[in-house]
Amino acid sequence: MESASHEKAGLLTRLWTCLKPLPGKLVSKVAEVARKIKKLGQDDPRRVIHSLKVGLALTLISLFYYSRALYKGFGDSAMWAVMTVVVVLEFSVGATLGKGLNRGLATLLAGALGVGVHHLASLSGGIGEPMLLGFFVFLQAAASTFARFFPGIKARYDYGCLIFILTFCLVSVAGYRDREILELAHKRISTILIGGATCVIITIVVCPVWAGEDLQNLVALNLEKIGNYLEGFGGEYFRTSEDEECKDDKSFLQGYISVLNSKGSEESLENFARWEPGHGRFRFRHPWKQYLKIGTLTRQCAYRIEALNGYLNSGFQAPTEIRSKIKDVCTMMSLESGMALNELALAVKKMTRPTSADPHIEKSETAAKTLKTLLKSGIWEDTDFLEVIKVATVASLLIDVTNCTQKIAESVHELASIAHFKSVDPTVSPEKSQLSQVKLAAKVDCPQVSITVRESSPSSKESGNSLAPTAVPRVVL
Amino acid sequence: MESASHEKAGLLTRLWTCLKPLPGKLVSKVAEVARKIKKLGQDDPRRVIHSLKVGLALTLISLFYYSRALYKGFGDSAMWAVMTVVVVLEFSVGATLGKGLNRGLATLLAGALGVGVHHLASLSGGIGEPMLLGFFVFLQAAASTFARFFPGIKARYDYGCLIFILTFCLVSVAGYRDREILELAHKRISTILIGGATCVIITIVVCPVWAGEDLQNLVALNLEKIGNYLEGFGGEYFRTSEDEECKDDKSFLQGYISVLNSKGSEESLENFARWEPGHGRFRFRHPWKQYLKIGTLTRQCAYRIEALNGYLNSGFQAPTEIRSKIKDVCTMMSLESGMALNELALAVKKMTRPTSADPHIEKSETAAKTLKTLLKSGIWEDTDFLEVIKVATVASLLIDVTNCTQKIAESVHELASIAHFKSVDPTVSPEKSQLSQVKLAAKVDCPQVSITVRESSPSSKESGNSLAPTAVPRVVL
Repeated sequence: MESASHEKAGLLTRLWTCLKPLPGKLVSKVAEVARKIKKLGQDDPRRVIHSLKVGLALTLISLFYYSRALYKGFGDSAMWAVMTVVVVLEFSVGATLGKGLNRGLATLLAGALGVGVHHLASLSGGIGEPMLLGFFVFLQAAASTFARFFPGIKARYDYGCLIFILTFCLVSVAGYRDREILELAHKRISTILIGGATCVIITIVVCPVWAGEDLQNLVALNLEKIGNYLEGFGGEYFRTSEDEECKDDKSFLQGYISVLNSKGSEESLENFARWEPGHGRFRFRHPWKQYLKIGTLTRQCAYRIEALNGYLNSGFQAPTEIRSKIKDVCTMMSLESGMALNELALAVKKMTRPTSADPHIEKSETAAKTLKTLLKSGIWEDTDFLEVIKVATVASLLIDVTNCTQKIAESVHELASIAHFKSVDPTVSPEKSQLSQVKLAAKVDCPQVSITVRESSPSSKESGNSLAPTAVPRVVL
Repeated sequence: MESASHEKAGLLTRLWTCLKPLPGKLVSKVAEVARKIKKLGQDDPRRVIHSLKVGLALTLISLFYYSRALYKGFGDSAMWAVMTVVVVLEFSVGATLGKGLNRGLATLLAGALGVGVHHLASLSGGIGEPMLLGFFVFLQAAASTFARFFPGIKARYDYGCLIFILTFCLVSVAGYRDREILELAHKRISTILIGGATCVIITIVVCPVWAGEDLQNLVALNLEKIGNYLEGFGGEYFRTSEDEECKDDKSFLQGYISVLNSKGSEESLENFARWEPGHGRFRFRHPWKQYLKIGTLTRQCAYRIEALNGYLNSGFQAPTEIRSKIKDVCTMMSLESGMALNELALAVKKMTRPTSADPHIEKSETAAKTLKTLLKSGIWEDTDFLEVIKVATVASLLIDVTNCTQKIAESVHELASIAHFKSVDPTVSPEKSQLSQVKLAAKVDCPQVSITVRESSPSSKESGNSLAPTAVPRVVL
């Protein structure tokens, strides 16, 4: 008896030990989810606005049909309007317009074709009717589904094909008489129009999100990420053990990773952007394709940086005395390429001609030439060749990156001339001088990139061998 | 008068010149489209089969409801079934199951919630009813839309959220009395079930396309592409002007490009694969995540190859006499890494333990060590250092690629042990020996990769300096 009650008490205790931490766990779980929600909203507040927009559109359309339903009875009509809003209202204006147009046109086309086929089938009568109908449904569904595999159709008209198949099947099989079908078509098209118009008005009027602007910002951001990496690379790679105290934010070294896989987002944004009408600084038929070209070149640069990044790891690190011989010129080359990319990013974002990037491109080219001369002169004789190779690879990859930067600059120039970017006088450009000053100030604070301070004396970077850094006396030359 | 008739004749002639080439153009356009269609079907015949499957499913469901409509009148029901088939039937089993389950569960959940809310609102009565309804619709739509921004939900439950919003709005606003709503719910759910079941049966029974298998094949194919590149790289890079006559297919040099941007397809296939039940050699909960890991490592290897590929261009090409000093060992390293990757690809595809790749990995590691010794010994003294650096960079990148290959091999081994791949005795593996023999035969035919023939004498690759190719006497040593 006692043992039974003991057992019971033990069971209760165990149950209690199991259940006791549950509320705590639940609270921490809820707190975690809340934190995630907050972060998601803070990362891009437009997400919150979009959610509210969908809520608003659906409430409006629901209440409109609900109030009608109280008098006339609720029919299919409202359903089509609600469905249209749910499916068509997308994050960006381009996506919404694309889906709306696809839905509208496909419904019209398939409806007309469906009525024709239905009429044709009903003429044959008897057993011929369902056979003919079945044949046409099969043919149309198979052909439209196959069409969806074409990359061009998949990218822009996938949703239209889906709605085409759906509407055709519904209409051709509907079994209504011709007059009824016309009434049905009229009702359905009008509700789709109401739903579509609600979506388009809300998406354009309430805090519009333009896919074209997003594409432009994404391309600019990617250029900036690569630029920041290159600006910081010199200081990072040629850091000596004594520089360690300068512990600043290292996130710029990770930025390029997201660039590597940006192809998909860029392409879908470009597809959406093509549906958008002229707005703000963009006219209809803005050369969106050119942004994809810049994006491709940026990724090619990022691939090289991924290879370069491997040499930042300690395992691939060469001794300081070997690295120091090309420190100044490599830092200069990397920094100037980075600054050029940042200027290009700014030009893309502000839609100005990227003239302010040209001096940086030139400087990085000069630095690349100096580096080549330096390498030719045999600065590393009597050194462990295996260690030399590690540094030489970095130099070689940096030269490669400089070439990529030039190509990017060319394609941004091309974009600027196709899209008629406004030109700014580089001497008075407030952004440019501001950017450069901030950059220089930041670099001067941090001792390892002393080259930027000496940048003004061109003789030091032209004279080849004399580039051995005088500011770092501890280096064994 | 005459001038007028002259003008008229001129106009006609011009019109004729404009119209005359039109039929020809039309014919060539049609021929082009036909060629594209044929190519699309030939590239993946499963596309044709999928199109026929969609046609079949829709014909069946349409005729089923059409025959019922003749007796009972055509209602909403058929529409839901047709809609379900159009939307849910996807290319792969996983995608179809995922969408079907999302649709079914979201409809049930949102339906129940909608009935509850509708009941609650009707209790308040008067002006309170539409206000309460509007409030709930707004809240639900905004919350569900925001939830779709979470990457985890976006990847797997995006469609479910959409259907949840749709059903909730439809049901809560429906204005029906409670009994009617239950009848409607019963009707709708049964038609969705019929539509969903048709999709699932057709997708599994008629030539099923398994996303999991596609993922496995894609990962294996990517490994193979990188492997083929590496196998061919040595021959291509160390080609001398006299080797030009060996003009074989160069497509293997382009294969790696598609690997660079494969992240998106791999991730979506993994998402679909997780919905699939056990089938063939895969059980439910096969470690699909591990395939993504291998894919990521493969892409990292591909990024290095992209950097490497730049040095194949003539602009970056160093003179033959400099290249020739590391020709044999680099060719060996690249070839062995490539063969290892091809063996790994075969192991992934056949689901066997990748033991046959290990000897190749070892050989490539040995070659890397030899290369390092060779570089240390200063083979390029008294040579133009700038040219040396180009070759040294290639060597350095190749060592980097070899490291990547090792990491890939490790993760394939990991996959093999998690997924319990069957082990094969490497001495009797028919695929392996077959593969190696074919590879060796191919290389022997082409003179520039003579190292593969000498592969059997290990002394030649251990002895460092003696690796200078004896088969190419024209090289100035």
